[in-house]
Amino acid sequence: MTGLTGSIIDDMAFRAEMSGLAEQVKACLADDLRQHGSVLPPHLRQVSESYLAHTGKCLRPALLLLSCGAAGGTLKGALPAAAAVEMFHNWTLLHDDVIDHDSFRRGRPTGHVLGASLGQQDLQLPAAAAAEYGQSLAILAGDLLQARAINLLLSVNGQKDKVVIGLARRMAAKLTSEVLAGEQLDVQLSQTPFEQVKEADVMEVMRLKTGALLSFCAETGVALAERRLPEDSSAAQGMAKFAELCGIAFQIQDDILGLSGDEETLGKPIGSDIREGKRTLLALRALKSCSERDRKTLLGILGNAQADAGDIEKAREILLRSHSLDGVREYSEDCVKQAMALLEKHLPENRWRNLLAAWAKSMTHRSV
Amino acid sequence: MTGLTGSIIDDMAFRAEMSGLAEQVKACLADDLRQHGSVLPPHLRQVSESYLAHTGKCLRPALLLLSCGAAGGTLKGALPAAAAVEMFHNWTLLHDDVIDHDSFRRGRPTGHVLGASLGQQDLQLPAAAAAEYGQSLAILAGDLLQARAINLLLSVNGQKDKVVIGLARRMAAKLTSEVLAGEQLDVQLSQTPFEQVKEADVMEVMRLKTGALLSFCAETGVALAERRLPEDSSAAQGMAKFAELCGIAFQIQDDILGLSGDEETLGKPIGSDIREGKRTLLALRALKSCSERDRKTLLGILGNAQADAGDIEKAREILLRSHSLDGVREYSEDCVKQAMALLEKHLPENRWRNLLAAWAKSMTHRSV
Repeated sequence: MTGLTGSIIDDMAFRAEMSGLAEQVKACLADDLRQHGSVLPPHLRQVSESYLAHTGKCLRPALLLLSCGAAGGTLKGALPAAAAVEMFHNWTLLHDDVIDHDSFRRGRPTGHVLGASLGQQDLQLPAAAAAEYGQSLAILAGDLLQARAINLLLSVNGQKDKVVIGLARRMAAKLTSEVLAGEQLDVQLSQTPFEQVKEADVMEVMRLKTGALLSFCAETGVALAERRLPEDSSAAQGMAKFAELCGIAFQIQDDILGLSGDEETLGKPIGSDIREGKRTLLALRALKSCSERDRKTLLGILGNAQADAGDIEKAREILLRSHSLDGVREYSEDCVKQAMALLEKHLPENRWRNLLAAWAKSMTHRSV
Repeated sequence: MTGLTGSIIDDMAFRAEMSGLAEQVKACLADDLRQHGSVLPPHLRQVSESYLAHTGKCLRPALLLLSCGAAGGTLKGALPAAAAVEMFHNWTLLHDDVIDHDSFRRGRPTGHVLGASLGQQDLQLPAAAAAEYGQSLAILAGDLLQARAINLLLSVNGQKDKVVIGLARRMAAKLTSEVLAGEQLDVQLSQTPFEQVKEADVMEVMRLKTGALLSFCAETGVALAERRLPEDSSAAQGMAKFAELCGIAFQIQDDILGLSGDEETLGKPIGSDIREGKRTLLALRALKSCSERDRKTLLGILGNAQADAGDIEKAREILLRSHSLDGVREYSEDCVKQAMALLEKHLPENRWRNLLAAWAKSMTHRSV
């Protein structure tokens, strides 16, 4: 037994490693922007760069790089692929934010909101036309980053061409279909009355919308190290499952933080999930287990865009005191435990694997 | 002299060839749908398949295939690339139609309109929520087809891997940036008062929005035949210019047909360009050359969404009788003439080159 608890790497050391990896990825993204940005009209350029300039913790590229390192590969060769998954993540966010009409992301205006303000300032558009203009810009910026993600992945050097082509096709065919299917199911669930939403549907959205990209990161890291395609590697497949389980834990923690986190750290208002009526595992379970009176109160507030601060507080209180909170926390910790077992099974012990264990643990222990 | 007038191929024979090529491309697209469609939620699948099922004349894939044939390549090997450019074209249309709020395309409801009706029928959504739902579906469907376009291009067989990777990167980096830059400039021009729009801006939109994809088709066809990248082939570069010139002729004919074509054949209402206030070369020139009185009338109608049938008729009449109509027609025929010279210079005489000449001539002589 190697004692794979993640405690081998202490929290400070883990954070330092993560921020070191994030810096490398950001430098790679900045390089890409310099190369391609100059042909773009200024507004399209500004909106497409806005998410990348504040791209956060780079959890996904870190997963790819650590998986590559743990499987015996060099991180440098995997860097363009790591930048590619961050680019991919950002195009889905740009389009997601248009679809959900979200106004804030990482504490800053979302793409369509930024675009609208550019239309007002530079083109003197009235509010309604500016909103339209902003939405168009965000759609086009997302399209642009999608193409750039594939282009980055295709720029991976020092690999067999067959592997590069296979990975790019995997991103374009499998991954993109899954993520888009997840987004579409999510949109559809948001239009389905809470009482008709099944836990299995919510799990499927988590698997497709969050899990699929994380799986792609882990399997691609291993594939690059082994210089063969994920479908030919049992380690890559095991790590894909590892990442999917971590993705569920990540999403559950996201839902909990959306109720009890710190607004400034989160970069979005607490309660926005409640006003939006987000179909979370926690909400679904709370509705089943709480008193009839609480259930009625909750159903009246969830998804009510006009809910005031008092309503939000009431809904939060019901969700946070329900037994369901403990239940979903346990479930999420169980996912991480299963993931740890897969990690130990599929990759040899080394420093990168210890960092991967710390990465997995951070899914349930993060505050951002 | 080979007498490259296109008359070697008579009109009937040309049409028969074109529809034969279109059938092959459509079969390839249908195959792709069968392979990937099953993982998609039904509504996303329906919206993303709706454009492909009625994909029209396949002018772009035909250009790719004919260029490949004329440069000595086999059409069969180029077929996935031909399907890829049609797929690419269709994702840009889906997002274009969302951005322009167009309701009809090829005589059928656009993606967001179809999506809205699915939301009403199957999810019983009220009109406003259904419209939102339809828009989300059209955004996601466009995203999906973008990824599939690259996937198809990467599936080209019997080529050097370096060429396949290089062509896919050219699509993802150069082509996509140009098309999106063109779309963004177009959106911005539509918000710029007619008097401030310059002819050079309109030309730039034509070059980027229409020309870039046509150039990609021609150069890719030659590149596949020569088994090297377009940047290494003077024939590919010459044919890219050929296609760009044809693209201008195509766009000008489009603008003329938008005023004087047959609604049923066009699949959209005559006058929609006028109501939308589309910044066309013809409108720009007419505004410069017509009487002060006509100019005022025209400026009052162009871009007026509330214009009635009488207004549209008035605007059409001014545009069609202005000297500018002859001017843009001449200009467009001159583009085709220059294109013909490039064709003759860069490709050897053969049956495919004669078909390419007929293809180029059809740009200014089409009614659809």
